[in-house]
Amino acid sequence: MDRKQLVDTILQKKSYLCIGLDTDPAKIPTHLLSNPDPVFEFNRQIIDATKDLCVSYKINTAFYEAHGVAGWTSMLKTVDYIPATHFKIADAKRGDIGNTSAQYAKAFFETMNFDAITVAPYMGEDSIRPFLEYDNKWTILLGLTSNAGARDFELLPSAGGHVYEQVLLKATKWGNINNLMFVIGATQAALLDKIRALTPKHFYLVPGVGAQGGSLTEISRHGLIPDVGLLINVSRAVIYAGPGVDFAERARLLALSFQQEMVSMLV
Amino acid sequence: MDRKQLVDTILQKKSYLCIGLDTDPAKIPTHLLSNPDPVFEFNRQIIDATKDLCVSYKINTAFYEAHGVAGWTSMLKTVDYIPATHFKIADAKRGDIGNTSAQYAKAFFETMNFDAITVAPYMGEDSIRPFLEYDNKWTILLGLTSNAGARDFELLPSAGGHVYEQVLLKATKWGNINNLMFVIGATQAALLDKIRALTPKHFYLVPGVGAQGGSLTEISRHGLIPDVGLLINVSRAVIYAGPGVDFAERARLLALSFQQEMVSMLV
Repeated sequence: MDRKQLVDTILQKKSYLCIGLDTDPAKIPTHLLSNPDPVFEFNRQIIDATKDLCVSYKINTAFYEAHGVAGWTSMLKTVDYIPATHFKIADAKRGDIGNTSAQYAKAFFETMNFDAITVAPYMGEDSIRPFLEYDNKWTILLGLTSNAGARDFELLPSAGGHVYEQVLLKATKWGNINNLMFVIGATQAALLDKIRALTPKHFYLVPGVGAQGGSLTEISRHGLIPDVGLLINVSRAVIYAGPGVDFAERARLLALSFQQEMVSMLV
Repeated sequence: MDRKQLVDTILQKKSYLCIGLDTDPAKIPTHLLSNPDPVFEFNRQIIDATKDLCVSYKINTAFYEAHGVAGWTSMLKTVDYIPATHFKIADAKRGDIGNTSAQYAKAFFETMNFDAITVAPYMGEDSIRPFLEYDNKWTILLGLTSNAGARDFELLPSAGGHVYEQVLLKATKWGNINNLMFVIGATQAALLDKIRALTPKHFYLVPGVGAQGGSLTEISRHGLIPDVGLLINVSRAVIYAGPGVDFAERARLLALSFQQEMVSMLV
């Protein structure tokens, strides 16, 4: 999916919502557990109930890997089930030396047909380049994350700013606004003006709204640009909105409340 | 496996060699391709031919993920096949917010029974802690890697040294010499005295010997400590030593040459 297609979809749906499928068998409604693949069945119903309200789904690979081959099977079925109209993100935080990153890129862009993958920047340029070499695929590089640990290394002072600022500045020389996004945590709203000044035209994937306490309105106020430039992800707060048989309807209501907030921010 | 068991095995075998199973179906001998699981069959023969010469095997997850569910199946079979006497490393470079890292720890330490996993430090303490909470399991944190991209962020000047030095110093407060190792690339031998001064008792996993050009002798001269403290990994140079039906014997000869070099370093 290219930038124009993504932006057109956002404007048409008045939504820059991404729903995170961090699906944990221990947290899904118990009536699903008799299904042959409870994780996929949960995801299927969540997708059916929310797809008109969001433009993207994000699959957090950890929750699937934790269940081995069965988990990977559920993940693949889920990726295939997500409509082609939606931007499919593998939240995988991969990154290794060049020949290994090339294998990760193959895994997520070819074997699994995701549109985008999150990548960790620590190992530098040659660990990121293989992901950028695919047409119409996106590398979403960790910039400044939403967790407390962001203070440890991302926010270390370095020559010319903090470490995360060096990540933003260097990476914008390796990729461009059509194949590179950044992860910017919703809990970092106070720094968003500064981040926008460094990367005025890049899309950000923003996790941390909901369970982690970030504010959709604050992030939107400081992060929106003329062609939107934001995908705001909500995972737990949407998918676990209800514990019963009506879980998908409850998830829909939560997704709707976020989407309605976005309608007011997009005018 | 605890530190004493690992060191005892090293001293008994006179080997601190780790063999990296970066198994790529495009590179394995063609006569194996008619096997129902060529990747596992390749690994099985490599393990049989080399297990007396090495103390550890490292599985690079990227090469298995690139082939989807079939790849994960080959990986699981391989982990199960590695003898319990050997230190089993998942070279996975994972790391995410706490609740997600906990799922990765579950995947690699419980579902798959690896002894160790490589972890990327960018997201800080809460992304690393869940891995450290397992008894007799090891977190191998990226310190200073072997690739050219190490210059981009790891070697950025920061308050009190380079970024990678901050990683070493902070991480030694979160873990200890019995559950935390560091990845130190073999191409970084010139910095090894400095790195040893910062982390005098930690084990290092050292990739980059062989295809990447690092020197086993140089690394050993600067990195060995009284209870060894080194695992040197060789992947491509060993496993792809020969293209024919005798590939496993050829791999054995290469492994033997590395192990013999280690014999002379251990006296």
